Amino acid sequence: MKNTFGQSVAVTLFGESHGAEIGVVIDGITPGIRVKEEDIAAALDRRRPSGRISTTRAETDKFRIVSGVMNGRTTGTPICILIPNTDTRSKDYSRMASLPRPGHADFSAECKYHGFQDFRGGGHFSGRLTAPLVAAGAIACSALSEKGITIGTHIAELGGVKDRKFDVYAQDFALIRGSSFPVLDDTAAQEMRKAAEKAACEGDSVGGVLETAICGVPCGVGEPWFDTLEGVLAHAMYSIPAVKGVEFGDGFALSAMRGSVSNDAYIMEYGHVRTATNHAGGICGGITTGMPITFRLAVKPTPSIRKPQRTINLGTMKGEELTVEGRHDPTVVHRAAPVADALSALVILDLLSSRFGTDWFLPA
Amino acid sequence: MKNTFGQSVAVTLFGESHGAEIGVVIDGITPGIRVKEEDIAAALDRRRPSGRISTTRAETDKFRIVSGVMNGRTTGTPICILIPNTDTRSKDYSRMASLPRPGHADFSAECKYHGFQDFRGGGHFSGRLTAPLVAAGAIACSALSEKGITIGTHIAELGGVKDRKFDVYAQDFALIRGSSFPVLDDTAAQEMRKAAEKAACEGDSVGGVLETAICGVPCGVGEPWFDTLEGVLAHAMYSIPAVKGVEFGDGFALSAMRGSVSNDAYIMEYGHVRTATNHAGGICGGITTGMPITFRLAVKPTPSIRKPQRTINLGTMKGEELTVEGRHDPTVVHRAAPVADALSALVILDLLSSRFGTDWFLPA
Amino acid sequence: MKNTFGQSVAVTLFGESHGAEIGVVIDGITPGIRVKEEDIAAALDRRRPSGRISTTRAETDKFRIVSGVMNGRTTGTPICILIPNTDTRSKDYSRMASLPRPGHADFSAECKYHGFQDFRGGGHFSGRLTAPLVAAGAIACSALSEKGITIGTHIAELGGVKDRKFDVYAQDFALIRGSSFPVLDDTAAQEMRKAAEKAACEGDSVGGVLETAICGVPCGVGEPWFDTLEGVLAHAMYSIPAVKGVEFGDGFALSAMRGSVSNDAYIMEYGHVRTATNHAGGICGGITTGMPITFRLAVKPTPSIRKPQRTINLGTMKGEELTVEGRHDPTVVHRAAPVADALSALVILDLLSSRFGTDWFLPA
Amino acid sequence: MKNTFGQSVAVTLFGESHGAEIGVVIDGITPGIRVKEEDIAAALDRRRPSGRISTTRAETDKFRIVSGVMNGRTTGTPICILIPNTDTRSKDYSRMASLPRPGHADFSAECKYHGFQDFRGGGHFSGRLTAPLVAAGAIACSALSEKGITIGTHIAELGGVKDRKFDVYAQDFALIRGSSFPVLDDTAAQEMRKAAEKAACEGDSVGGVLETAICGVPCGVGEPWFDTLEGVLAHAMYSIPAVKGVEFGDGFALSAMRGSVSNDAYIMEYGHVRTATNHAGGICGGITTGMPITFRLAVKPTPSIRKPQRTINLGTMKGEELTVEGRHDPTVVHRAAPVADALSALVILDLLSSRFGTDWFLPA
Repeated sequence: MKNTFGQSVAVTLFGESHGAEIGVVIDGITPGIRVKEEDIAAALDRRRPSGRISTTRAETDKFRIVSGVMNGRTTGTPICILIPNTDTRSKDYSRMASLPRPGHADFSAECKYHGFQDFRGGGHFSGRLTAPLVAAGAIACSALSEKGITIGTHIAELGGVKDRKFDVYAQDFALIRGSSFPVLDDTAAQEMRKAAEKAACEGDSVGGVLETAICGVPCGVGEPWFDTLEGVLAHAMYSIPAVKGVEFGDGFALSAMRGSVSNDAYIMEYGHVRTATNHAGGICGGITTGMPITFRLAVKPTPSIRKPQRTINLGTMKGEELTVEGRHDPTVVHRAAPVADALSALVILDLLSSRFGTDWFLPA
Repeated sequence: MKNTFGQSVAVTLFGESHGAEIGVVIDGITPGIRVKEEDIAAALDRRRPSGRISTTRAETDKFRIVSGVMNGRTTGTPICILIPNTDTRSKDYSRMASLPRPGHADFSAECKYHGFQDFRGGGHFSGRLTAPLVAAGAIACSALSEKGITIGTHIAELGGVKDRKFDVYAQDFALIRGSSFPVLDDTAAQEMRKAAEKAACEGDSVGGVLETAICGVPCGVGEPWFDTLEGVLAHAMYSIPAVKGVEFGDGFALSAMRGSVSNDAYIMEYGHVRTATNHAGGICGGITTGMPITFRLAVKPTPSIRKPQRTINLGTMKGEELTVEGRHDPTVVHRAAPVADALSALVILDLLSSRFGTDWFLPA
Repeated sequence: MKNTFGQSVAVTLFGESHGAEIGVVIDGITPGIRVKEEDIAAALDRRRPSGRISTTRAETDKFRIVSGVMNGRTTGTPICILIPNTDTRSKDYSRMASLPRPGHADFSAECKYHGFQDFRGGGHFSGRLTAPLVAAGAIACSALSEKGITIGTHIAELGGVKDRKFDVYAQDFALIRGSSFPVLDDTAAQEMRKAAEKAACEGDSVGGVLETAICGVPCGVGEPWFDTLEGVLAHAMYSIPAVKGVEFGDGFALSAMRGSVSNDAYIMEYGHVRTATNHAGGICGGITTGMPITFRLAVKPTPSIRKPQRTINLGTMKGEELTVEGRHDPTVVHRAAPVADALSALVILDLLSSRFGTDWFLPA
Repeated sequence: MKNTFGQSVAVTLFGESHGAEIGVVIDGITPGIRVKEEDIAAALDRRRPSGRISTTRAETDKFRIVSGVMNGRTTGTPICILIPNTDTRSKDYSRMASLPRPGHADFSAECKYHGFQDFRGGGHFSGRLTAPLVAAGAIACSALSEKGITIGTHIAELGGVKDRKFDVYAQDFALIRGSSFPVLDDTAAQEMRKAAEKAACEGDSVGGVLETAICGVPCGVGEPWFDTLEGVLAHAMYSIPAVKGVEFGDGFALSAMRGSVSNDAYIMEYGHVRTATNHAGGICGGITTGMPITFRLAVKPTPSIRKPQRTINLGTMKGEELTVEGRHDPTVVHRAAPVADALSALVILDLLSSRFGTDWFLPA
């Protein structure tokens, strides 16, 4: 199904970095959900490059809701959101057609699209296409928030510098709300920025890890096989450019534990069954337990670096040295955070709509 | 879509641990693919418990092909494979209905199925349901092998003991072929067994990590968004019980690298474009590069342990101490290896059938 | 997706006429739905050949529920039902491999499956595969009946003889309940049988029309585009072998009406909005109005006839005359009726589960 | 999946009659397919109202390709096409919110969307949304034509007046190419127009029948169950507003035939297996035979009529008389013809891409 994701609530993504507009269609959202343009704008602002550790390309991210919203509420029919591209300097990218950039999709795209793909600025592969996803996610968040479901993502690690873990979710979510560089510990944040800037000075880039938590999802959501909640969430998360690993709860750390440690004991808390620990990240047997859903994303270093690299000229089939000119981020970890939030919201909205029916989200 | 997975080639799983039979339907496989019952039997043998580090339940795993195969070849219509359950001592499990086992799906299943689920022996959640998946995977492997595509999985880590990494794939695959405890380094294998047995003696269990490689997949397979190859493979892999993390190529290790290190330089090798390294695990922009596809799976410790654990009696809503009696494995890491192979084969077969058409796998 | 149908509730069909068993997997049904084996048996009885106007092959249709049902109720996990094939005389069919029967799928199957298909007795194309569908439908009916949704199908026309139309649905449904030759008017029924027997005597066969009504479906179900209720129902109905036309409400007769006649005026009835007429068959804009959903199916004459027919020998590529020996029905119209009921039930269950959530059908 | 249709090639539709723009996303089309804007414009012209028998609303149908096309060829990534709405006089429709129009989706939409739907001018239900479908279909036709696949639709009946049937397809397709009132027989065309105009004078509307033929599709395409070619095509066709019946080949007329007549005998023609007749409409067992695929669509009379009609005021729940003011067509049969062509092209492109792989349509 390619560029469409979701069953009950489905998202279709289109556009290229250097076309007139990029956009998204969100279908299946409950009618009557409040759509505040300022929330969408705020979400887009978080994704936008800013400060020294991002590209200097001016992305204004003006958006336009073309359908599916009337009088500030969803109508229940497909919502199309368009974001115009501005400041698209195509000539920076002219040489890449024949010289695939290491770490980028240039070569695999050439194999798939037989040279017909729009290669300007990454084309359909551009990280810029996460902007419409973020806009779609903002509407999903609006629906979820009515049910008390909240989502937050912080930079758990960047350039080797670690943030502290999530502690009290409500407080920590408040701490990073709206931040375009969401780190819980201020000192860590400063060191992360330094690490990224140092790499940038050296014509290089750094990677990192994001940690996401989704609070308030009822127990009993997900499937035992194939459409496990882990499977569906991970499937979505790999759409975030540069994500190369997804782990739930304690993830890879679980592999070194013993069962007596990794098992989460059941306890009663305020009249509800809870677990004393949450090593499982809120998911057992592919299905929610009612505990916060937690996962971590490995984000590789931005492949665009100034340092010279070896590649093959696809015209001559001879080796060449490539130096990627133009604008690029020394890291995209922080910009992936709002995308993780958006995809989380869209996946959870989809699963809850399937589980409890579309009307479940109807305004009271 | 729940218990069905795949687009062009789809797999549907059914059954419970203590029912008469469990089974699988594989739909969409090219007609004419050779089906050798001994290959299926061999794959099932690898998954079967054996030796001291597995449960002593005698799983004979006799299987029966009910449809879709004639004269030793696929007909092109759905293949149903049934595996009878034997030796199903239900009384061992009678207490679990009200006392959810920590680390198991008992509680989340109760929330989802409102108490109507078959809780005997894990029911539909039982790891035993991986047997039909392994059988289905053996047929998928038969189709893939005609195109030179090979798959192998070894235990990269178990109970804290590490195996060496894959080196020369063809040789390493030969080394572990048919092994029910696939480890490349013999000393490591022995230490892993010791670690598992030690945990068993202490009424505990251990987790580990699997590493899978898929060789021979053409470049240009996968999608830039949503149905990225990483996303589709990870989605499938989370169906393996106890898997809590999936990472591609260098995965989480990439997050601590610099771009100049993590980028895979393009080189020419025997007239083909290759990469000098394979940090990306054969996937760029969600699409294959033609390099081996590699990923690692975090497997949590088996939740069934003899040590007493805290839980809640769902009848009285009071805390109780639970000791899980009966047969259980101190680890399931090795038994997950053939499942990883099987799901890999099914996913790749599906994607190649979608990409190149069903007839692509027709016998010459 | 081939042999799987449905989103929230999905049905997967497998098997061949001359294999050991045929079967079906139904996935996504609400847990707790009552499953009475006698209801399934009764539904299968209606589909079974009987009397002079059907083949004399003894189809016992013993069935076996392999999974997904415990203590007489659905567990919420996939239900697999197996029906053994008996009395499979393969030698009758040996010549068909090279001589495609006119009106049958022999030739198109040869093109699709490249000669690897199981051609014995129609193989996977056999009308016999409707038996598992009917069994699945019986479970779906059980769920629907709890919500007051009822379904009935009668033979509106057979061999040129017309039945009267449905009038008072509850009464008419009662009239045909359990009948294996469901006709509302007794005289019409007798003449239909005569027409079929006359054709049989002449080595020929007859077609007919079925009329189905689904009562009690809430208003607001269906989609404006693509997944219109008409589209989804028709999609399913074309799986009934020999169906070549589907029309909703007054269907093709609407094309000769004027808008002032075909429009259904809205009126109040017992406090509910209803329509004075039901030319639209309960569906406007692809969405239910709350009126009975009605449609008619065109069933072509059974292609298996004793009369000699022209065909091509696919070995020699020369014309030959073919006389189809063996057992065959002079008509299958009546046997398609329980299949129409079953598919209707499965489609409506799927759509309602998607619309209102899986829990909507939970027992009170 | 609602507003998305197709597996390998998928179409997503969005927009409302009185929004700024309506549009479509086509995903999965082979890269390198030629996209001529003049072909799209010509297809849109055919759908546009013209002459006396259509609404006088000026629909300019300027379109804009936002993504997925570069240098006049498809890139292989999603194609988004936008069509601006102009001349949207919302006040004409203000009264409909509370007075559902008989024969329209107003009431069923109210039930589904709980009053949040955009009711202006039919909103998302407007026939105007067929314009983007027609644009998408024009691109699909471009791909198909490279493989020698051609499609044509004529008005088989309108207001009780019948056209002759398709005879020699190539000639007949040439006859109606580009016509916005495609009738094979000129006299019939004139009488049809008269019948429609007469109805219009009387404040009424007429329905009709379309006949579509698809030539050049290879044999062996379609599935035996569920995704039969009839099922998939019919599913799509019911998206054409006002279609209430779909029949393949001789359709309902088959129900009155005998098998000896309805069976299509196999013959050799120019070295290929063909059928002497084509009662089956090119489909046997759900799979193409290589003969032209033919079907007929029942189109109900336009529900918008000037004559007063009974309805219920949903505010007061009392009966009222409604006279639909504003612009409306006395018939939409002719305008549905290019939509039938477009949906046919999209379905066939999807099925062929699934069957033979995406690269099958690559330019030579």
